[in-house]
Amino acid sequence: MIIEPRILKGFRDSLPKQERIKRDLIHSLEMQFRTFGFEPIDTPALEYTDVLLGKGSGETDKQIYRFLDNGKRDVSMRFDLTVPFARFMAAHINELYEPFKRYHIAKVWRGENTQKGRFREFYQCDFDIVGVDSMSADFEILLMMYQSLTAIGLDSFTIKVSHRGLFNTFLAHNGIQEQSAEILRTVDKLSKIGETAVREQLCTLTDVAAADRILSFISCGKDFKTAFASLTSLSGGPSEASERLEQIFGMIDELGLNDYFELDASITRGLDYYTGIVYETILTDLPSIGSICSGGRYNELASLYTKRSIPGVGASIGLDRLLAALEELESSTDQGSMVDLIIFALDEHDFSRYHHTAQQLRARGLHVEVFPTKKKLQQQFKYAQKKEIPFGLFIGEDEAASETFTMKNLIEREAFEHISIDDAYTIITSHREHTIDKS
Amino acid sequence: MIIEPRILKGFRDSLPKQERIKRDLIHSLEMQFRTFGFEPIDTPALEYTDVLLGKGSGETDKQIYRFLDNGKRDVSMRFDLTVPFARFMAAHINELYEPFKRYHIAKVWRGENTQKGRFREFYQCDFDIVGVDSMSADFEILLMMYQSLTAIGLDSFTIKVSHRGLFNTFLAHNGIQEQSAEILRTVDKLSKIGETAVREQLCTLTDVAAADRILSFISCGKDFKTAFASLTSLSGGPSEASERLEQIFGMIDELGLNDYFELDASITRGLDYYTGIVYETILTDLPSIGSICSGGRYNELASLYTKRSIPGVGASIGLDRLLAALEELESSTDQGSMVDLIIFALDEHDFSRYHHTAQQLRARGLHVEVFPTKKKLQQQFKYAQKKEIPFGLFIGEDEAASETFTMKNLIEREAFEHISIDDAYTIITSHREHTIDKS
Repeated sequence: MIIEPRILKGFRDSLPKQERIKRDLIHSLEMQFRTFGFEPIDTPALEYTDVLLGKGSGETDKQIYRFLDNGKRDVSMRFDLTVPFARFMAAHINELYEPFKRYHIAKVWRGENTQKGRFREFYQCDFDIVGVDSMSADFEILLMMYQSLTAIGLDSFTIKVSHRGLFNTFLAHNGIQEQSAEILRTVDKLSKIGETAVREQLCTLTDVAAADRILSFISCGKDFKTAFASLTSLSGGPSEASERLEQIFGMIDELGLNDYFELDASITRGLDYYTGIVYETILTDLPSIGSICSGGRYNELASLYTKRSIPGVGASIGLDRLLAALEELESSTDQGSMVDLIIFALDEHDFSRYHHTAQQLRARGLHVEVFPTKKKLQQQFKYAQKKEIPFGLFIGEDEAASETFTMKNLIEREAFEHISIDDAYTIITSHREHTIDKS
Repeated sequence: MIIEPRILKGFRDSLPKQERIKRDLIHSLEMQFRTFGFEPIDTPALEYTDVLLGKGSGETDKQIYRFLDNGKRDVSMRFDLTVPFARFMAAHINELYEPFKRYHIAKVWRGENTQKGRFREFYQCDFDIVGVDSMSADFEILLMMYQSLTAIGLDSFTIKVSHRGLFNTFLAHNGIQEQSAEILRTVDKLSKIGETAVREQLCTLTDVAAADRILSFISCGKDFKTAFASLTSLSGGPSEASERLEQIFGMIDELGLNDYFELDASITRGLDYYTGIVYETILTDLPSIGSICSGGRYNELASLYTKRSIPGVGASIGLDRLLAALEELESSTDQGSMVDLIIFALDEHDFSRYHHTAQQLRARGLHVEVFPTKKKLQQQFKYAQKKEIPFGLFIGEDEAASETFTMKNLIEREAFEHISIDDAYTIITSHREHTIDKS
């Protein structure tokens, strides 16, 4: 009996091309992170449920993949990389050092409602500096965001920055701190539901005058100096928070990065645990896709697991969203076919010559395939076409004797006859440079 | 209340250094696979239990992480990458092409007995050519094994090759084919339990004369020509299997790889599904660790899920075992510190200069950190030492004016004064080359 090869709703196979693009993107990001001294870590996919859920929140409880293992332990699959990182820091703080800078790129699982187009298995890509609360660390995360996004080919984006503490100071100054968590969550929806709806919701949380003051706070404009002056004045004058924000924007200015950053007091991030700066990243040509990289400063990472205070600042790249954006913007890291050349199988007795030639070209850095069985040339061409391989090599009897080959550009259908291995290498690499120049 | 940051038995955190070595090893292997035209794929960590277990085997049943999800679906975490690959091929055969060459490097989970030093979460690294049954494909997998292991710095290993079909022909020729699966599994234990114990066990499966004939078959010696002649004669003369084996060793010879391959009729691989060549890889200087890369030809990959016949040949690298071996042989891919230079924080007002200098050096390809807060120099040195950072940069007031710096080699304690950014770059890169030369 045949079993239908079905997969679970909300889960996906990753086919060669998309998996290659994803792995290359992850590698590029990773190499950027490393130039800043961030190191990789990993944690188990499965942990004790009480460790992952901590005090628990209703939302996470419902979505988590939780079960009893064969030893009757209550276990769960990780639903993010933040909680495992907190547990990791508490467990290893004495083997590590502070400040500690890590990145973690791995899959997480959530039983989300797939009707919203959400997936139940997806990648997270987090990077954080923990063990220090400093302006330089805040700035470094922002700088690394700019650097990483630029490195993968994006150039039109805005990192919108605000400060949770400044907002709280403002609320306190205006005597409306009571519903602050709810107010923050409401303000966070501004870009999704618009000003009118936010105002309506705010009015259910506080009085109309306060709602209007909140709206004027979060709509302070985009010119840093003007906006910053208003925000400071609306929150009762300079504070620790305003000072930190001013320093950070000073650094942005001094490094000539003004075009990529913006003060935006409507950015609050929904989560309770942020205490300092918060940020989101919007693609200029694709704002509708939402933030592709967000985060902020939190001052108690691991308080569930240790009495030691571990402050931190970090961000998370939404890899699936970023991949979707790169595809839509046609600025993917994909550089066409993965293979440079295919050696066609013409004669069953010549396979060692085919493999030997392939090895010689691989030793020069090319990606080379040998078609593994003598089939009709038409079928071999079809295979090359499917894999978008640009060049094909024919090693015939005459050519074996003279150690020369016939090579064909399979796309432009140009033939090169009686060429040597070195010639083949030169033609292929110059073609590759030409192709990359065009893109 | 503090929750103890404990992790499940058989699971591990991966700390920065080991995670970096692992990720670099994976990347190196992956880049080798791609030079042969192998493409990456991925499949979900969680699948329907009936899809993963198929007909099921008692052993797997007991070890699998299986549960009902929130939608009451019977689901399981993947326990290998072979079954998901079979399911993947059946599901996507019409979008793909044959031959199809893929690699898959990912975690799998098994609730194994941890007392044997086994882990419940570990990586597999599989590569296969499916959709073709040819000598060239068999050889290509062997060639890629050789090439990948060499590329990661191993040079003393033996890939022991045999042929399941030849063994079966031998058994049939001698009229002892009845218990063939059991006999194969017994022979497979030769290197673990020794000849005497194998003989004893064989005698419970067949008569003494047959047991001795089996023993003489699997101990045919290491010289290919002599061994091959005995094996062929013991199995009743040339067969399809002996012919394939002879061709493969002919290719090995013609590509000058004799030192790395050996015909060893005692290699049978325990699993039932192999039908053609089978192989294991033993490290010359660390044979006790067992095979680091094994596999073979199977002729029905996806028969559980499709009526279409999909033959294949492939191998699997035991990543954790390989990492352990590289560490023991001290030939790891680790090239020391990940960071070239740390810029020390001397003055709270100079951070934009620190970050600007760091960016200039990163743009030249160096890995540079800025210490994120002004602490005692002693503490900053300690941090640099922990991360094994070889160079430290001091940007003082005078130096800012002249755009020169003082740099220190933190290991050899040599100081370089009044140097420019270009000087710093030159000193660091020449130091790096020197260090790599030594290793």
